[in-house]
Amino acid sequence: MKVSPECVPCLISRVLYEAKLSTTDAHTQLKAEEAAVRAMCNGSLEGPIALLSTAVHRAAYRVLGDDDPYRGVKQLANETAMRLLPTVQSIIKSSGDKFHSAVIAAIIGNTFDFGVMGFEVVVNDFEKEVAAIYRHGLDIDDTRAMKPLLSNVVYVADNVGEIVYDGLLIEQIRDLGGHVTLVVRGAPILTDATVEDVWNFGLDKVANRVMTTGSNAVGIKLDEVPADLKQALSDASLIVAKGMANFEMLSEYEFRPVAYLMRVKCKPVADAIGARVGDFIAQLVR
Amino acid sequence: MKVSPECVPCLISRVLYEAKLSTTDAHTQLKAEEAAVRAMCNGSLEGPIALLSTAVHRAAYRVLGDDDPYRGVKQLANETAMRLLPTVQSIIKSSGDKFHSAVIAAIIGNTFDFGVMGFEVVVNDFEKEVAAIYRHGLDIDDTRAMKPLLSNVVYVADNVGEIVYDGLLIEQIRDLGGHVTLVVRGAPILTDATVEDVWNFGLDKVANRVMTTGSNAVGIKLDEVPADLKQALSDASLIVAKGMANFEMLSEYEFRPVAYLMRVKCKPVADAIGARVGDFIAQLVR
Repeated sequence: MKVSPECVPCLISRVLYEAKLSTTDAHTQLKAEEAAVRAMCNGSLEGPIALLSTAVHRAAYRVLGDDDPYRGVKQLANETAMRLLPTVQSIIKSSGDKFHSAVIAAIIGNTFDFGVMGFEVVVNDFEKEVAAIYRHGLDIDDTRAMKPLLSNVVYVADNVGEIVYDGLLIEQIRDLGGHVTLVVRGAPILTDATVEDVWNFGLDKVANRVMTTGSNAVGIKLDEVPADLKQALSDASLIVAKGMANFEMLSEYEFRPVAYLMRVKCKPVADAIGARVGDFIAQLVR
Repeated sequence: MKVSPECVPCLISRVLYEAKLSTTDAHTQLKAEEAAVRAMCNGSLEGPIALLSTAVHRAAYRVLGDDDPYRGVKQLANETAMRLLPTVQSIIKSSGDKFHSAVIAAIIGNTFDFGVMGFEVVVNDFEKEVAAIYRHGLDIDDTRAMKPLLSNVVYVADNVGEIVYDGLLIEQIRDLGGHVTLVVRGAPILTDATVEDVWNFGLDKVANRVMTTGSNAVGIKLDEVPADLKQALSDASLIVAKGMANFEMLSEYEFRPVAYLMRVKCKPVADAIGARVGDFIAQLVR
């Protein structure tokens, strides 16, 4: 997915957001924005948005002298996700189609994405919201077409918190006889999950294999990806790509088939995918 | 006033807003943002915000090939202001302190500022709102201290629409024996008033003299100002500066005394002035 006009102010807003998470010093916040703006000048507004975001956030992190401004936010997301896990687990357990239920759970997890401008979740109402989401179902639902493709899944995770719910879906894929390679970022970026989160939640015991993207790039930056992940993406019977950043990047590559699972949080992604902001999406691209 | 961290995403959002006013072509919108970002790179984030905004908007206008993207918005503002004028006129007429009432009217006019992120006015409820504002009064009220300073006023207007209400205050200043030089922008920028608006509303007959800032700079850019305006600012018994952009710029210069009349629409200006977002301000700085 290429840069949309809406992406530019959103990206700068997000830099301000992370700068404020990292420091209360206005001058340092401004310096982080300046670095972000310079990264935009040096990069291209005509290329893929995730490459631009990667350059911009790296520049901001460097000036902030902080390799993980979202540390506190991520902890909150993890705690909230864990607190609400039993509700979702029991819904899946009592469901007729556990795979379908677990896909919805994984997309509910994708709602735990703090820091995207104009999208906020009232966590207090979450149990009620979860029930409403299950009643509503998926706005794009290709889950039936995904089921025959589960033999060798590469599951590209997105955010912390969310990854707890990914675990529920990975369990279902394995129950259906699938082999799952779980992929997380190689280093902290935004609220994305890393191997620390995999270990914290024991997901290395749920998935068959764990890999990383090899760097803190937003999404998957192919020239920074380890050779074994590139091979795994090529060999996969299905790539499950969680969230907007993975969509933004994987939609640029040739790997297929890909199942995009996400809550749509902004108009550019909605337009690119053929959906509306707020939609719950399980879209198979062959 | 210097650039605040909040200014950077707000400024880019405003460029996107004006790009969308000017064209539906996403590629041109993106090119306008790119030009804005480049202007930020070439300028300084450590200087006055109005200088940065001037450079950024000029760059965007150039790429848009549009010397007035706000044309339609400005017309709407003018129409709305005219429609509501009789209500405010009758309030002033029946008021015990007509100068004070007209100051409030001029600040109500400053509410007609379309396009500032996070600040919108429900025009439909405006008559009710006007009544509520008069009940509420001014949050900073130095009008009493302004009254002895009205002999030779330089009145620096801000937006179209608003300028109709400025006329009411200029009338009161003249009724109190004052001489008024009305200053508008030398060319279209944002929703700011120009000589066309002065002529349209016959304000050249209300004020004693009309001058322009000599260019389309945001606020007053002293190196682009005609010599006669510089002289007038030096000689003034009182400079009346309407709105945030004039505050942003005049707070950088030595001209005194200045009466800042505005509705405060963002946190950086609120912090600089010692007020809150939403406040109605008539502040005298000697």
